[in-house]
Amino acid sequence: MTDYRQMWSDLGMDLEKHDQLTGALPLVYETVYLKQPNRPRAMEYFDLVVAEIHSLRIAELVEHRRRGGKVCGAFCVFVPVEIIRAAGAIAVGLCGGSQFWIPDGEKVLPRNLCPLIKASVGARLSGTCPYFQSCDLLIGETTCDGKKKAWEVLNNFAPVYVMDLPQMKRPRDLVAWREEVGLFLDKMEELTGRRVTPERLAEEIQLQNRLRRTLERLYAARKADPVPVSGKDVLLVTQVSFYDDPRRFIEKTEALAAEAEARIAAGEGVFSPGAPRILVTGTPMAIPNWKLHHIIETAGAAVVCEETCTGTRFFEHQVDEAGRTLDEQLQALAERYLKINCSCFTPNPGRIEDILRLVKEYRADGVIYYNLQFCHGYAVEYYAVEKALKERGIPVLKVETDYSEEDTGQLRTRVEAFLEMLR
Amino acid sequence: MTDYRQMWSDLGMDLEKHDQLTGALPLVYETVYLKQPNRPRAMEYFDLVVAEIHSLRIAELVEHRRRGGKVCGAFCVFVPVEIIRAAGAIAVGLCGGSQFWIPDGEKVLPRNLCPLIKASVGARLSGTCPYFQSCDLLIGETTCDGKKKAWEVLNNFAPVYVMDLPQMKRPRDLVAWREEVGLFLDKMEELTGRRVTPERLAEEIQLQNRLRRTLERLYAARKADPVPVSGKDVLLVTQVSFYDDPRRFIEKTEALAAEAEARIAAGEGVFSPGAPRILVTGTPMAIPNWKLHHIIETAGAAVVCEETCTGTRFFEHQVDEAGRTLDEQLQALAERYLKINCSCFTPNPGRIEDILRLVKEYRADGVIYYNLQFCHGYAVEYYAVEKALKERGIPVLKVETDYSEEDTGQLRTRVEAFLEMLR
Ligand code: SF4
Ligand code: SF4
Ligand code: SF4
Ligand code: SF4
Repeated sequence: MTDYRQMWSDLGMDLEKHDQLTGALPLVYETVYLKQPNRPRAMEYFDLVVAEIHSLRIAELVEHRRRGGKVCGAFCVFVPVEIIRAAGAIAVGLCGGSQFWIPDGEKVLPRNLCPLIKASVGARLSGTCPYFQSCDLLIGETTCDGKKKAWEVLNNFAPVYVMDLPQMKRPRDLVAWREEVGLFLDKMEELTGRRVTPERLAEEIQLQNRLRRTLERLYAARKADPVPVSGKDVLLVTQVSFYDDPRRFIEKTEALAAEAEARIAAGEGVFSPGAPRILVTGTPMAIPNWKLHHIIETAGAAVVCEETCTGTRFFEHQVDEAGRTLDEQLQALAERYLKINCSCFTPNPGRIEDILRLVKEYRADGVIYYNLQFCHGYAVEYYAVEKALKERGIPVLKVETDYSEEDTGQLRTRVEAFLEMLR
Repeated sequence: MTDYRQMWSDLGMDLEKHDQLTGALPLVYETVYLKQPNRPRAMEYFDLVVAEIHSLRIAELVEHRRRGGKVCGAFCVFVPVEIIRAAGAIAVGLCGGSQFWIPDGEKVLPRNLCPLIKASVGARLSGTCPYFQSCDLLIGETTCDGKKKAWEVLNNFAPVYVMDLPQMKRPRDLVAWREEVGLFLDKMEELTGRRVTPERLAEEIQLQNRLRRTLERLYAARKADPVPVSGKDVLLVTQVSFYDDPRRFIEKTEALAAEAEARIAAGEGVFSPGAPRILVTGTPMAIPNWKLHHIIETAGAAVVCEETCTGTRFFEHQVDEAGRTLDEQLQALAERYLKINCSCFTPNPGRIEDILRLVKEYRADGVIYYNLQFCHGYAVEYYAVEKALKERGIPVLKVETDYSEEDTGQLRTRVEAFLEMLR
């Protein structure tokens, strides 16, 4: 058996603090995940990934770096991982989802800030996240104010490169974004010392398209009634997609999707018939943030879809594979990524269209609007989303919360009251 | 005497609510302004402006519109007023500074949002601000998340045009901003039905440069010790500059500056010798937000400079007047405006250089960092500002507050303790 403590120590981690972080996880995971009735067998792989979250995959990253390869961490689904991989680097998603990292984040950031940002910066500062420790470069972006400015702080502790995302979606913004994607390619070539060829980029575009289609297939199974797999399980799968090896991830997720489809054929599901079907929309849920899903699903409802960046915003839309030159490919990448309807754009009517479409497709009975505290973009956009939903008679509940457990009781009460209304 | 109630009613205002708003102002103004000892005589004009804040200037706007002219309101010092005026419209600054408007803002916006944004939107919704009621177009911008998304909400109640501000200051961002300034000119021509000629634009560029130089002259007088005019008075003057007629404003402010200079020559000041000199830096203070200045100056210290958008960021840097064609002029405008060091840029090292320079120029003993609650940009940027100041041994106090009076006692205690340390 590998000595992971040595590996963590070599990564400059704080082992004692790390023990505190990982010590609590098994019990939480047992309660939130393993106790779910009738789980698909194929979830075993994802259970293993979580059990070995700081060892198996990290060993792969360490080995990759030992051979001279680079690792890049990103915090937003706008960062084109195809380019990172085509340059020979490994891409990992770094958004922090644990309350454990908040106090360290608050040492350098204001308390009144989105927990995702505080946890992400805190994870780096605390030296307890081996993914952060393995990164040769962190890729930030100018999406929300909090992240945009937090990169400047983070840059005091680790090298950060920032992609400038447009704030509108006019034709000229696509042009600017296409240029930005080109600058990113240059940066990746500089980091890895390897040229990105059209052949390698085509391969990675195809691979990431496959990965997205795999998630799409899994999500499609959730349209069935009864739903064959829990929202919690699918959320976990999506979270794992951000740092797992993409080929292995696709294989394991295809197996899960196939199992879900077999259940549909057999009329099997994981919730009692007639359980309310909930669409969750809003801010991302980074691992191990399973708080809202756990409340909803232990209250007897099923989360059937997430219109979030740990949901449909991550995998909808493919990159056009017809491009043969780098220029055509970068254009196709820019176009695909700019289709993501994040609240950081103004205006952002596409997100409302998405929500309405997904409510229909996934036959949702109600919508829960998930807003990480102090995330202004999604909080202000609620006005328009609520209006659109109410006009169509679709019930909606807004939930604003952080990573702490303090408000769990109150949230549970509000969610239960909302579900009662749907029955 | 003009019947202002009729005018307000014609503007669609809620008269009863408006009476509540204006009813409290005289007493507040008496306490905060009129009781100051040894005020410059030239402040009389500004006292009059406040006393007639919803009547005299509004009558001018009404008259302008009666003749077919347009009025545009803006919320950020990045909006080039030269273009608005060159197109024949009147420009007014609309940032809300009163707690009175917060509840109405919170009807459509989240509570966890910067009070300036909530008050601005609330002012429009409440129908109690004749400046809002007089505007044919509101000019928003993509600076911070809160404002960027609030324009979408506001657009349900009034016509809004949004300028897209870059988030970085690379050469390509200047190019993008130059284009944006050009689009704004097109929009203004469309609104007013008048072509902007190079002659008219040159006139307005010169006029606004004069206005900026006037404020610069007034500020320069504050470098003297003892300081000849209070920080509160200068803050008011800057606040008035956003909506007064520019020519009259220049004349009255030149008179005030001359009086201040005469005081310097005579060795006269408004604070006791040796009173601590404070530089305030951070978020804007929209009229009638005089809270922090009042606390500082009634505690015996003098505010000698504001590195804010109701301070140096508003008037530093002139527009190059050499341009003869529209193209050259728009380039000069874009260049000047992009010199403003708002925290919405990443990175924003220029602001730190500005603060250090201003501390020296104005001989400040300490810095108070003023942060409107939930303004992430300035809150996160505090990390870098604090670091730079501490490295140089310059004392700094961070104050995070809103428009309410609830924390006044606590703020006063903190400010007094800070001033004690400086003596
Ligand atoms: S919510 Fe917006 S900023 Fe956050 S990960 Fe998604 S696209 Fe990026
Ligand atoms: S949830 Fe909102 S505030 Fe938090 S990182 Fe994402 S966009 Fe920014
Ligand atoms: S602080 Fe920034 S966004 Fe606010 S008025 Fe100033 S420049 Fe504009
Ligand atoms: S103070 Fe900050 S949050 Fe408020 S409007 Fe200005 S930039 Fe936006």
